[in-house]
Amino acid sequence: MATSGKVIRCRAAVAWAAGKPLSVEEVEVAPPKAGEVRIKIVATGICRTDDHVVKGCIANVEFPVIPGHEGAGIVESIGEGVTSVKPGDKVIPLGIPNCGECTFCLNPEANYCVKFHFSEPQNLMPDKTSRFTCKGKQIHHFVWISTFAEYTVTPEYAVTKIDSAAPLDKVCLLGCGFSTGYGAAINTAKVKPGSTCAVFGLGGVGLSVVMGCKVAGASRIIAIDINKDKFAKAKELGATDCINPQDFNKPIQEVVTEMTGHGVDYSFEAIGRVDTMIAALASCNMNTGVFVMVGVAPSDAVISVDPLLLLTGRTWKGTLVGGRKLKTTF
Amino acid sequence: MATSGKVIRCRAAVAWAAGKPLSVEEVEVAPPKAGEVRIKIVATGICRTDDHVVKGCIANVEFPVIPGHEGAGIVESIGEGVTSVKPGDKVIPLGIPNCGECTFCLNPEANYCVKFHFSEPQNLMPDKTSRFTCKGKQIHHFVWISTFAEYTVTPEYAVTKIDSAAPLDKVCLLGCGFSTGYGAAINTAKVKPGSTCAVFGLGGVGLSVVMGCKVAGASRIIAIDINKDKFAKAKELGATDCINPQDFNKPIQEVVTEMTGHGVDYSFEAIGRVDTMIAALASCNMNTGVFVMVGVAPSDAVISVDPLLLLTGRTWKGTLVGGRKLKTTF
Repeated sequence: MATSGKVIRCRAAVAWAAGKPLSVEEVEVAPPKAGEVRIKIVATGICRTDDHVVKGCIANVEFPVIPGHEGAGIVESIGEGVTSVKPGDKVIPLGIPNCGECTFCLNPEANYCVKFHFSEPQNLMPDKTSRFTCKGKQIHHFVWISTFAEYTVTPEYAVTKIDSAAPLDKVCLLGCGFSTGYGAAINTAKVKPGSTCAVFGLGGVGLSVVMGCKVAGASRIIAIDINKDKFAKAKELGATDCINPQDFNKPIQEVVTEMTGHGVDYSFEAIGRVDTMIAALASCNMNTGVFVMVGVAPSDAVISVDPLLLLTGRTWKGTLVGGRKLKTTF
Repeated sequence: MATSGKVIRCRAAVAWAAGKPLSVEEVEVAPPKAGEVRIKIVATGICRTDDHVVKGCIANVEFPVIPGHEGAGIVESIGEGVTSVKPGDKVIPLGIPNCGECTFCLNPEANYCVKFHFSEPQNLMPDKTSRFTCKGKQIHHFVWISTFAEYTVTPEYAVTKIDSAAPLDKVCLLGCGFSTGYGAAINTAKVKPGSTCAVFGLGGVGLSVVMGCKVAGASRIIAIDINKDKFAKAKELGATDCINPQDFNKPIQEVVTEMTGHGVDYSFEAIGRVDTMIAALASCNMNTGVFVMVGVAPSDAVISVDPLLLLTGRTWKGTLVGGRKLKTTF
């Protein structure tokens, strides 16, 4: 039974135009329509992809917009026909929806959905209207979940119920960062026990890659960052070596190759820069190495790659939220 | 027991300088030294990589040089210590050697060898001298096998014995073209039964990819070439659709994507052009697709790629002679 009703006034961080700083505003959040869920967002993470959104570096985003795609909260109300969640349920909004009907959703090996932003912009709800207004203006959604608002509205198939005991300030990271990094090691790379790994970038995603490599049984995990303050945490989570490219007078891929003989079995880039992507690709074994591109580059980025890097047998894999359906992960 | 002895005078196609046409010359082929084998080449294929060599587009090649890396022949004589072949044996010279001792040779999943050209130029025999002279000048070897000569000398670990009944004019293609294309489908992509495939370029390598896809049980094989004269042979070998990019007024990747819904499961580029590599990458499923780069681009080529093509989940794999040790294949 639908429980929706009145408009909620609350705060949200609004990006009014590309390149302008976020502005905390009072916004109106309309009640959920049929098939929609209104969620009180209790915790949200901040991801570099949100920074790309604010800077106008994610394709097809429309301004003004409320960013945020890594959150957790409690269902406030539901629209007609919603059955999988009810008010009071703890939930995680899904940055990649799960319509359950498309060729990707029906394929157990896929983790995309044709309703995701790259196929069809998710700047408005499926009925092509917004639930957000501010100062009389319509505000756009971001991938339907806009977690930088105290209340947000999502389609039912872009939200999933979680355990009622889950600590929302921690599990919000499952919505993107942790799932992306950990899954890149476990699902996308399928790191084997005893193997060697290199992780470029030790933010939340990179540290989650380190955890994934550790759980998978990697014998050596080389953690790489220009900020050495990250090294203690990386070692605590499983890194066996921590190196700073600024400590060497040669390319970091040469350093990694020399440390390991012929490069690591698996390399990961968790920053989103094209130069470190190429360095990570070149750091894995020229014949059998697997490079997983985890970081999201700005939408106008172009990677210039020498085909020989791949010809000799390397594999370059992309990963989206860790290579597994988010809904399945939860 | 060594059988080597006198210098042999025979014909060979010599590339005197980068960018100059091949010239058929009388050359002297010195007897094999210890650990070497002299082979009468009975048949040789011509590969686009040889064209790259002649044009000076393969890194580290030194001129003058005798190209050719896809041949078959009969052992003429052997140097001291050679035990795996004897005069009269039918053999295939290995474009990628198999030293049997390096980390790659000892890894069953690898098919490289640290003695291969990309790690250490193979322009001279392991003792850093050449067995070829012409008009008083030293001529360089190409990947130690120089099959564009009537007689060639290789290290023992760059040749393998084959069945005495093998037709040399056919099995010479196992040295590169057929193994590369067929193996790209079977070993590198590991094409699954019922899957969809697209093959860019229907030369000998591309047709071998078609055969591999067919044997692997692909349900649809889209063969692509700007030369429609190739289509009859492609269909005979298993292609279900043959298309010519010049027949469409939109990018061929859009055509393939529309033909298949969301792109093929596996795409292959068997030409060696960066534009068709990007088209092939974009032709496979954005989330689960695998692109295998089979063609060899010129050594100064750079591929400019939008990272989003990979971020959504695609895999890009390189392959070297089909992803399996050549010696094992034979």
